[in-house]
Amino acid sequence: MDRTLIKDLNENIGKEVQISGWVDVRRDHGKLIFLVLRDRSGTVQAVVTPKAEEALKAAEHLRDEWVVNVVGEVKERPDNMKKEDEQNGELELSVTGIEVLSEAQELPFDQSSDLNLDTLLDYRPLTLRRRREQAIFKVQHVIIKAYRDFLTQEGFTEFQAPKLVGGDAEGGAEVFKVDYFYDKTAYLATSPQLYKQMMVGVFERVFSTGNMFRAEKSATTRHLSEISMLDFEMGFVKDHSDVMVMTAKLTAYIAQKVSEECAEELKLFGVEAPLVPEEFPTFTLREAQELIKKETGVDKTQEPDLEPEDERFMCEYARENMESDFVFVTHFPTNKRPFYTHVDPESPEYTRSFDMLFRGLEMCSGGQRVHEYETLIDRIKEKGLDPEKFSFYLQAFKYGLPPHGGIGMGLERLTAKMLGLTNVKEASAFPRDMNRIDTLLSKEE
Amino acid sequence: MDRTLIKDLNENIGKEVQISGWVDVRRDHGKLIFLVLRDRSGTVQAVVTPKAEEALKAAEHLRDEWVVNVVGEVKERPDNMKKEDEQNGELELSVTGIEVLSEAQELPFDQSSDLNLDTLLDYRPLTLRRRREQAIFKVQHVIIKAYRDFLTQEGFTEFQAPKLVGGDAEGGAEVFKVDYFYDKTAYLATSPQLYKQMMVGVFERVFSTGNMFRAEKSATTRHLSEISMLDFEMGFVKDHSDVMVMTAKLTAYIAQKVSEECAEELKLFGVEAPLVPEEFPTFTLREAQELIKKETGVDKTQEPDLEPEDERFMCEYARENMESDFVFVTHFPTNKRPFYTHVDPESPEYTRSFDMLFRGLEMCSGGQRVHEYETLIDRIKEKGLDPEKFSFYLQAFKYGLPPHGGIGMGLERLTAKMLGLTNVKEASAFPRDMNRIDTLLSKEE
Repeated sequence: MDRTLIKDLNENIGKEVQISGWVDVRRDHGKLIFLVLRDRSGTVQAVVTPKAEEALKAAEHLRDEWVVNVVGEVKERPDNMKKEDEQNGELELSVTGIEVLSEAQELPFDQSSDLNLDTLLDYRPLTLRRRREQAIFKVQHVIIKAYRDFLTQEGFTEFQAPKLVGGDAEGGAEVFKVDYFYDKTAYLATSPQLYKQMMVGVFERVFSTGNMFRAEKSATTRHLSEISMLDFEMGFVKDHSDVMVMTAKLTAYIAQKVSEECAEELKLFGVEAPLVPEEFPTFTLREAQELIKKETGVDKTQEPDLEPEDERFMCEYARENMESDFVFVTHFPTNKRPFYTHVDPESPEYTRSFDMLFRGLEMCSGGQRVHEYETLIDRIKEKGLDPEKFSFYLQAFKYGLPPHGGIGMGLERLTAKMLGLTNVKEASAFPRDMNRIDTLLSKEE
Repeated sequence: MDRTLIKDLNENIGKEVQISGWVDVRRDHGKLIFLVLRDRSGTVQAVVTPKAEEALKAAEHLRDEWVVNVVGEVKERPDNMKKEDEQNGELELSVTGIEVLSEAQELPFDQSSDLNLDTLLDYRPLTLRRRREQAIFKVQHVIIKAYRDFLTQEGFTEFQAPKLVGGDAEGGAEVFKVDYFYDKTAYLATSPQLYKQMMVGVFERVFSTGNMFRAEKSATTRHLSEISMLDFEMGFVKDHSDVMVMTAKLTAYIAQKVSEECAEELKLFGVEAPLVPEEFPTFTLREAQELIKKETGVDKTQEPDLEPEDERFMCEYARENMESDFVFVTHFPTNKRPFYTHVDPESPEYTRSFDMLFRGLEMCSGGQRVHEYETLIDRIKEKGLDPEKFSFYLQAFKYGLPPHGGIGMGLERLTAKMLGLTNVKEASAFPRDMNRIDTLLSKEE
């Protein structure tokens, strides 16, 4: 018999079907055994009665997470037994046969219990099966798909950015070293920045998705050693505002897809789809700081950046006063931004850069980039770096690159904020940090 | 004035437009200057006449790869000047204004000349702009998009496989070492194999795309140190044949999208879209070897694998006799396949594994995997590996995993074979190998 997916059972009422999946829960009620069965499409209640003698015998051995083929008749429940807000709440499977495909050992904890972060991560192959964790990574799948689909529609071409690089692109971030051939040292890329700029010369509009690596000794709730970056870069912009318009449209598209395709998942986390206005609230850094001073009395107008509490304030302000979960902050100081950031010709101490804040956190960084060869060499020198080491990258500029700009956004951070997760590690299927590569590093000793 | 893309010029005949792009070629004809202009959507011929005095003055300074905004009128060419098989062959742009956005230095070579591989790679930011290289990476974009779209339609969920791992998954491949925190050594993943198996427990059907790393000291035309892997894994299979059916459908979908969306690119390389039969020719390894013996007289029936010339023979045979560019070869010996490969219960010296050959080369490897906890531990031990080191992975099996299988396929290799490129490095935008990370390693000394 062909397999029927659990989500399609409601089209098969009165029919005999075979489903395949996991035992989510087993409950014994006198002579009856109730099973909740789970496959990739959802869950259904099944009941085994003494009439199905063989099946009942098999059901007695079943435990959580055993993998089974189950044959049975799809029966409509009596009206008073129907559960309206539950998948398959109007039916149940009356079991006639059970075949065990894989057994499972006793679980180390109840899958429905609250788990602390270490347990959640130590038992990842098991805990990822929880409804809550499935929901996180379904949302993540929808986000990255929406990201790629939108940019492809807008004429962007995907490219594969290298992860093994000869040096540290940004000049400053902590990087991981790799033993390469011939006793050479390679590094793990912290960003595809330089490569996507080179690719602007090829396709004008490019994007990449993929892992990037940060070796900072940091253990905050927003830090991962390995992140999935969503990057794009576009040519022929007049300034950073063209990039902001594209970023806002992209963000709106992602939010729309999540709200359409993940309604159940948002509900599970008790969160709403993001508030996306027609136009995103936009402040220069100094305007934001003036607002903070006016509203809170705290004077940060001389600071070179927003602090975490400032980001939270700006997001709360925008949500309450401008019906937006998103805020752009622009014009960060030139001496705080990387060498490739385009200076604002009208006030050279500031850059044509921006951050997009989302629900209290910086979600992406972007801006216009330097596109003139000589200027770029000057900027590299000003930052105390050696242009010789950038000669490969500099070719893109030597041979004509248009004004361009782009952004980088962390997939895990976006997923976490979309669902209100407090720690970004929960939004990484297999998070790496200072203390962990799957297992705790300290455990290995 | 808003920018018009070059591909849309034919909808604007008689109108004044602004285009933005690169100077592809400049040719002077007496008092006229002809320009071929290039943007992400294609090329167009533009002519600057003495009537447009300012523009002509500007045009005299233009060189290859300068970046410009050009204003002009779109004019239909006289019938005898039309070029039918050329983009915009029926029109030209009569230039009235030129604005230079970026200058370029003199190019080190003519972009249309035949370049040797080292030059092609040393000047990657420039050579990627060639029509030929653009075509390669457009095809690559279409392949990876088709791969993801097909699997998403088939109910697969994407996940982000980690690249930093605690050990060597396959037990054998050469791996790169990374200096991790606390003087620990991490490794760069050679494959997402173990992670996608764990994810079968979560979503049944999963795929991942991303870079993987191979540290073999190998300098063949098919080897890269960093590859983009296309992986999927699916649960509830009866054996490897279910995986082969999915692989064949996936391959057919990719071939169809490439032939629909890349007709120009295939033409440029003088290649046809792949021959995709309804059902792929399938041989066991031993059947293939018998065929080779019968057809060529060479007896390799005792060999544990196909050699490169055998793969070429099988592909030629299938193309000539079975109208297929694809061949499945199944049942490789148990002692030659990794520990997670499912043994064929009917002949335990062989596995439920397969390779898919495409135009003379192994394009992907796949098969059914071991899903039983105890069996898997035995297999790990048989391969001389320590089950303790796999304890994280083994949880997936300890807590119930269905019969499953999948494949891994190299994006660069597929792109190269699709276009008939002789060296896989040409299908990597920024290839890494023993001797090269962007620049030649030996040059850095």
